[in-house]
Amino acid sequence: MTIGIIMAAGKGIRAKTDLPKQFCKICDKPVLSYSLSTFEKSTLVDSCLVMIPDGWKDNILQITREFSKVRWILTGGMTRHETSLIAIDFLKTINPSIVIFHDAARPFLSLNLLEKVIQEAKIYGAATAAISVSDTVAYCKDDFVDSYIPRESLYRIQTPQAFEYRIIADAIRKFQAEDGTKPVFLSNRKIRIVEGDPYCFKITKPEDLDLAGSICKFWKNTKYSQEQP
Amino acid sequence: MTIGIIMAAGKGIRAKTDLPKQFCKICDKPVLSYSLSTFEKSTLVDSCLVMIPDGWKDNILQITREFSKVRWILTGGMTRHETSLIAIDFLKTINPSIVIFHDAARPFLSLNLLEKVIQEAKIYGAATAAISVSDTVAYCKDDFVDSYIPRESLYRIQTPQAFEYRIIADAIRKFQAEDGTKPVFLSNRKIRIVEGDPYCFKITKPEDLDLAGSICKFWKNTKYSQEQP
Repeated sequence: MTIGIIMAAGKGIRAKTDLPKQFCKICDKPVLSYSLSTFEKSTLVDSCLVMIPDGWKDNILQITREFSKVRWILTGGMTRHETSLIAIDFLKTINPSIVIFHDAARPFLSLNLLEKVIQEAKIYGAATAAISVSDTVAYCKDDFVDSYIPRESLYRIQTPQAFEYRIIADAIRKFQAEDGTKPVFLSNRKIRIVEGDPYCFKITKPEDLDLAGSICKFWKNTKYSQEQP
Repeated sequence: MTIGIIMAAGKGIRAKTDLPKQFCKICDKPVLSYSLSTFEKSTLVDSCLVMIPDGWKDNILQITREFSKVRWILTGGMTRHETSLIAIDFLKTINPSIVIFHDAARPFLSLNLLEKVIQEAKIYGAATAAISVSDTVAYCKDDFVDSYIPRESLYRIQTPQAFEYRIIADAIRKFQAEDGTKPVFLSNRKIRIVEGDPYCFKITKPEDLDLAGSICKFWKNTKYSQEQP
């Protein structure tokens, strides 16, 4: 069994919105609905577990009603790591073969990217979408450049991230980290990189929500939304 | 005198397009036109110098005709550094107070960001747009994660980048680098960070051009395109 875990438990503090960013509407649909549509379409995904903030269950039920694969809605923890642990513990009795973590705040998830990450996880045990960095990268201090770092082979880790259930379950009980792949890495497991795309960015700040609002009207007509792997 | 230097001399090899990416059309207008519009609008900019690839002058003249501030069109060099040197040497007799480098492949430049970078350069001598990294960042090797690096205070350096002419002229004659700010940094000068926005991304790969195509229809109606500093 392959289960998608939609990480929608964040409180959206950085986006400075009244609503957590994953529930804000872009083109009259909540951000969360976009990636759920992609999971719904994939024949490689059996069911979805949606992790939400405390007190949001009734609202989420309204959003998820149209998605037949959403089987469970659970309240997450205070951190991403806690939320992941709650999800993994909950799935213990179901014992899926593969789980896919995806940030609800990344609405523009292509079917192609989702399925490629799943397929690579089946081969390598762990895989993540990531995008190579094309800008110069620097650490800054007090609003001034402090040092440059080499950008060759540098990637920004996105989601989706897919894992064999037994590998991620073991890893996140041992190691705590904000990113889902790091505990697996710290367990001396290899994590396969799948080249992501710029549409799959994360809505973190208000400007990101503005950008998502510009894109949503076209998303349905892009090849990223439509293409079959 | 404040002069914008539009870096449009790249051959666009990474974008795998027949046309260099800065001349590809999005919403029926060449990519280059978008940022030129912003420079044209700014009362802080007096003139523009457009750096182009060899053999493109006639095509560029057609694009730049509508922009009254474009005063010079020059053929660039083989690298970004060479192109910068040609531009800086050319401006020697004019001796501007401030120059602003901008990648033509970043079409969605807000007036606010452009003018803020200019204003900070007037205070600090050197300033660049940059965007804080919200994703986990890792080096990869042979398509697997190799090591993670801390993302706190990590920025992706964008353009526009503005400098006092005498500072950048001195620095890029001494130090060679692909990024415009690095020679200034190596000259022990401070570079002020101006928080950029996600619209100001660089078109590098074909997917970036697709994304720009989704955004262009809305760009004119966003607050980023319209706002006054």
